[in-house]
Amino acid sequence: MTDPVDVPVPTIISQNVLIEPDAVRILDRRVFPFEKTWVTCRNHEEVAKAIEDMVTQSSGPLFAAAGGMTLAARDADRLAGADERREFMAAAGRRLVDTRKTNNQIRDVVAQLLEVTGTALDTGEPLAEAVERAAVAAGERYLSRSRVMGEHAAVLIPDGATVLTHCWAESYITETLAAVLRSGKRVEAICTETRPYLQGARLTSESLAEMGVPTRLITDGMAAHLMSRGQITRFVTAADRITMDGHVVNKVGTLQIAISAHAFDVPYVALVQAPDRQAPSADAVELEDRDGDEVLHTLGRRTASHRVTGIYPAFDITPPRYVRTIVTDRGRFSPQDLESYYAGERA
Amino acid sequence: MTDPVDVPVPTIISQNVLIEPDAVRILDRRVFPFEKTWVTCRNHEEVAKAIEDMVTQSSGPLFAAAGGMTLAARDADRLAGADERREFMAAAGRRLVDTRKTNNQIRDVVAQLLEVTGTALDTGEPLAEAVERAAVAAGERYLSRSRVMGEHAAVLIPDGATVLTHCWAESYITETLAAVLRSGKRVEAICTETRPYLQGARLTSESLAEMGVPTRLITDGMAAHLMSRGQITRFVTAADRITMDGHVVNKVGTLQIAISAHAFDVPYVALVQAPDRQAPSADAVELEDRDGDEVLHTLGRRTASHRVTGIYPAFDITPPRYVRTIVTDRGRFSPQDLESYYAGERA
Repeated sequence: MTDPVDVPVPTIISQNVLIEPDAVRILDRRVFPFEKTWVTCRNHEEVAKAIEDMVTQSSGPLFAAAGGMTLAARDADRLAGADERREFMAAAGRRLVDTRKTNNQIRDVVAQLLEVTGTALDTGEPLAEAVERAAVAAGERYLSRSRVMGEHAAVLIPDGATVLTHCWAESYITETLAAVLRSGKRVEAICTETRPYLQGARLTSESLAEMGVPTRLITDGMAAHLMSRGQITRFVTAADRITMDGHVVNKVGTLQIAISAHAFDVPYVALVQAPDRQAPSADAVELEDRDGDEVLHTLGRRTASHRVTGIYPAFDITPPRYVRTIVTDRGRFSPQDLESYYAGERA
Repeated sequence: MTDPVDVPVPTIISQNVLIEPDAVRILDRRVFPFEKTWVTCRNHEEVAKAIEDMVTQSSGPLFAAAGGMTLAARDADRLAGADERREFMAAAGRRLVDTRKTNNQIRDVVAQLLEVTGTALDTGEPLAEAVERAAVAAGERYLSRSRVMGEHAAVLIPDGATVLTHCWAESYITETLAAVLRSGKRVEAICTETRPYLQGARLTSESLAEMGVPTRLITDGMAAHLMSRGQITRFVTAADRITMDGHVVNKVGTLQIAISAHAFDVPYVALVQAPDRQAPSADAVELEDRDGDEVLHTLGRRTASHRVTGIYPAFDITPPRYVRTIVTDRGRFSPQDLESYYAGERA
């Protein structure tokens, strides 16, 4: 039996983002795993809004932005001239990059797709096909780099380790633990719940347990206590950005766990595909402040006194002195030696 | 107009615990401030259960235990002989002390009330009156010592300070900030929400804002970030216990904030009426482990993946090197000099 030929098949750019003939659909990570629903975006503006509204997190915005650029390319193809198309695509790119600026993945994938746009406009190829093809390729490249990075990281996890992780490091942490398991080592995981969105409680816990890793959950305040009792072997997180001088930008909460790890001599391993050459140091990174009301609620329900206001700095910056090793797709680096990542490349 | 003379008036032992003719009523802090309901306890066993179930926290268990001993005294008076009454009271005391062992307040108030029991049995006074009188006196002594301690602590808070606090330090923090305000200094507060019970989000926030202190809320992971930005002047908490060698036992989460405070040179001030002479060091303190399921829920609703198990160490221990000052009802002490508290007293 064969598939009917006239049913359009979605392009599965990642498990969380689908590029379909009529729309981009994004798995709503705000309610997962309690509900499995998809948010439908008909154009790049709706994708941008979904990213701002935290429909997807971790690497999700990269895939969503790639999908958003694909929708923009379809709309651009309906415009009259090359200049209008080019300007439309550039504006779409700016809109998507502006959604969340702390992580550099949206910026980088948009830049790649604008380059493809330029080439397609030069050769006269329709933008829709060229951009979608490049979007899918960017997604595949991201996942394959994560896999390589996971292999490099797994070397740092000893047999029988208990790995503490914070927030939702997605393919970074799943590929790392998958490589640990492939090498025959035993490993357990402890996740912080990661308020206010509970990414650790909902997403990381779900995924690591599903992989067969024995997984336990703590509140965001318990990490140092477990370290003081010798119950944590490694602290491992993704980074939204790592600057060339070794500052790790990641979900707020990382800093105080990293400081505690340093105090109790627990190695902190930060995962990133590549340090950001556009960020020589921390002051080049714009830290996102989100609406403080999010701290006053839990999964939509008010959980704080009505007399109080919330503040929500979404990211913090861990200085290199608290970071033991930075793992990339080109291997393991000291936070003091990130220039080596680009050795032999032009600046 | 005068009160009708035959309506029994409750003994208000604290704002959260009432000793009434038929029962002890405890304000249910698990749902406050969203609901204001009281849990009715008809005997000391029901009081013990309420303490175990976290109906009341911070100093609440002290008042509740004093109420529980009063109920036990009423029941003891109905027993035949002095030996039976003494044994009944001792058993009631053991039951109450066993509820939550990390804080020494239940232990101490029960010991006081058993001493009163012994004297009343010797003199033939009914236990009910003697124990209730002593319970009320113990409550009043507690509150007046908190007031004195607050005066000593306020000296450490500079004008215009932003004070970060963790969990619910009740009269310790309210008396401290009240003394700050009385002295004409301006002060703002930031509370951690304190998962899993959200004491900071619900109780501390509510009380401090009600006092007129501008109060903001953060998640348990944000303290170090704010310190790294210079936004915290002092970190101030109560202690459930302070050992004679300066270890601070308090709600889990205190340790990693204290370590971060040390890293960013923010003074950590720990409040306790007196260091515990029965605890020379940390290994004399039994740390309570609570049901890990509590971490999987928020105000009764499941907020974690169903694939994961929770762990809930309720307290942690901050070593003296991370503590700047310990404030007691006898003044301010270095954590290295707590023997001075008892100078001139017999060991």
